[in-house]
Amino acid sequence: MSRLVALLTDFGTDDPYAGQVAAVLAANSDAQIVSLTHGVPAHHVHLGASIVDASLELLPTGGVLLAVVDPGVGTERRGLIVRRDDRWLVGPDNGLLTPTRGDIQCWSIDRPEAWRDTVAPTFHARDIFAPIAARLANYERPDWLGSTVQDPVRVNRPSACSDGPNIRGEVIHVDAFGNLITNIPAALVQTAHMLETQVSDARIRGLAATYGTGHEPVALIGSWNLLEIAVPGGSAAQRLGCRIGDVVTVKRQ
Amino acid sequence: MSRLVALLTDFGTDDPYAGQVAAVLAANSDAQIVSLTHGVPAHHVHLGASIVDASLELLPTGGVLLAVVDPGVGTERRGLIVRRDDRWLVGPDNGLLTPTRGDIQCWSIDRPEAWRDTVAPTFHARDIFAPIAARLANYERPDWLGSTVQDPVRVNRPSACSDGPNIRGEVIHVDAFGNLITNIPAALVQTAHMLETQVSDARIRGLAATYGTGHEPVALIGSWNLLEIAVPGGSAAQRLGCRIGDVVTVKRQ
Amino acid sequence: MSRLVALLTDFGTDDPYAGQVAAVLAANSDAQIVSLTHGVPAHHVHLGASIVDASLELLPTGGVLLAVVDPGVGTERRGLIVRRDDRWLVGPDNGLLTPTRGDIQCWSIDRPEAWRDTVAPTFHARDIFAPIAARLANYERPDWLGSTVQDPVRVNRPSACSDGPNIRGEVIHVDAFGNLITNIPAALVQTAHMLETQVSDARIRGLAATYGTGHEPVALIGSWNLLEIAVPGGSAAQRLGCRIGDVVTVKRQ
Repeated sequence: MSRLVALLTDFGTDDPYAGQVAAVLAANSDAQIVSLTHGVPAHHVHLGASIVDASLELLPTGGVLLAVVDPGVGTERRGLIVRRDDRWLVGPDNGLLTPTRGDIQCWSIDRPEAWRDTVAPTFHARDIFAPIAARLANYERPDWLGSTVQDPVRVNRPSACSDGPNIRGEVIHVDAFGNLITNIPAALVQTAHMLETQVSDARIRGLAATYGTGHEPVALIGSWNLLEIAVPGGSAAQRLGCRIGDVVTVKRQ
Repeated sequence: MSRLVALLTDFGTDDPYAGQVAAVLAANSDAQIVSLTHGVPAHHVHLGASIVDASLELLPTGGVLLAVVDPGVGTERRGLIVRRDDRWLVGPDNGLLTPTRGDIQCWSIDRPEAWRDTVAPTFHARDIFAPIAARLANYERPDWLGSTVQDPVRVNRPSACSDGPNIRGEVIHVDAFGNLITNIPAALVQTAHMLETQVSDARIRGLAATYGTGHEPVALIGSWNLLEIAVPGGSAAQRLGCRIGDVVTVKRQ
Repeated sequence: MSRLVALLTDFGTDDPYAGQVAAVLAANSDAQIVSLTHGVPAHHVHLGASIVDASLELLPTGGVLLAVVDPGVGTERRGLIVRRDDRWLVGPDNGLLTPTRGDIQCWSIDRPEAWRDTVAPTFHARDIFAPIAARLANYERPDWLGSTVQDPVRVNRPSACSDGPNIRGEVIHVDAFGNLITNIPAALVQTAHMLETQVSDARIRGLAATYGTGHEPVALIGSWNLLEIAVPGGSAAQRLGCRIGDVVTVKRQ
């Protein structure tokens, strides 16, 4: 089975940028190419990193994730190859590819002979990262493509924190259905016998198993493996007047 | 030739949901993967079913269509495999996959050993339907994946109806070019010698062959195989002030 | 390695049109399918042609580009196969596929036996161009698919012009990051020792190598190989109040 290359960017799809990256991949590899999303809000490295965290395990072992959310394109920041959970990641060294902690291996992308012949300084994704991802998909070894490094940037994302028996987090994403995705990990809330989630004016008791069928807001562990607030058949963002950055508090009992 | 899996959802592409479904497919099959659209308005099962109707014959025989427009995700509604016109469909049992009438075979998706190891209750598309679609693309038999059922939900879509010599239908979709797609099937109007289409204030005589080059609204059989109202080089929706649900009447003579 | 078919349209992705084209391609070929973009503004042939110019070299030799931006769909305009820079292009004969000048070979798409069995007059992309592109990807010869023609439409795009020592061009695209893409080719400005770019109220001295890290607008050669105006980490369009069609002047010294 040919390898898979998944794409994650903040390029949108109205411009040809995401498609040009895919074209370079396809021109240099037989890999299956899948777009996770190109809709990350421009330059939101933290949200991009959360999507990487939530999506990586969906790739097959040996699969490649080319991820680019990059406020510093064309500046001196490095490009990285990361080996993480038996998958390959390729992109900028700005924390997008790296977990806050945990064991990974990294290579600096520093061998121009492995890139496109001409490199636009404003489009590393197309001219450097895509050829590197294609080579990894073609089973080339990372040592041929870069030099081992020990100091990748580790992302310093706003994380949920314990406040006595309570947890204080925030809304990190509002999805197209109006669901509020928080940065509170499943592990922190699933162990609680009883809990109450507060966001905006709402106080939501307990955890629901699904979006359900009522009309009141529910709190649940969603597909990001994070605490999520939803309104069955409607938009929690609209109903509660919430947006990215709003505080979410969970009281554990 | 490897099988094809086409995708149809209301997930949009700003979130990683559609891409995660594609990643799971790619991780489990060599099938070609094609997105028909992820832009169905949220929860509009009727419109989704019309797109299924209009698109199924484009798939090769044996191809798979994974379609998810699902207000009831995570509730007790079943998942279905449907055999229809020599293609496979996978998705929720809410009428999205089934024609109003006509011969089909159905299986309830009830064998968890064929799903992802962990299933998020809010994301059956990724964790149940995608693995099932991949298995069908890999030539696994539906009997291994579910139990035969005889009572699939049949969609009860608002349908065009005859009113004496006239036909009364409605606008079911406004496309990105502003064309008004109605629910009036080609078969009902193509046989008429003369006809007049009324929508909003406009009265349009006859059927045009193409969008043409004039400046007046035209009625024609479009690519959905449904009656469509267009303004050459412009937006019929803007010109006529029309939107989804507006009544369309065809007078046959 | 199987051939690549890239897609470029103004269909958007909210409707199933782009996906139906891809489905027909996939049903008729094992080619890898990549969408460059479906976000060309409706009927903007000039911008589409600029994206074709900027993207063609990314395709592998022998690759196929199916491009459709087509105000005249269904009228008498021809469909074309174009051989250009060792790639194949398929689409309408309205200048989208053809360079302003330069050597190309063209065939009129005039063999209905090579199309889908039924052709919707409003959807040549799906019913005529996609089957032709699939056949080219399957190594069929163009002589089997059409007749040689010598008079393809050549696009008459607004082009940058010299005005004494100065160059006068315009903004042809504002990308999702707010960068202003002009129609001034790299070749015209890269040779200048010193230059000043004027757009709106801004006067920008010199050429930057990258989007950089300052806060002032910069002029640079972007990934389109055209002069581009950007604001580091922000939107040049917003900062300068610019939009498509605005005049850009470069003073060379």
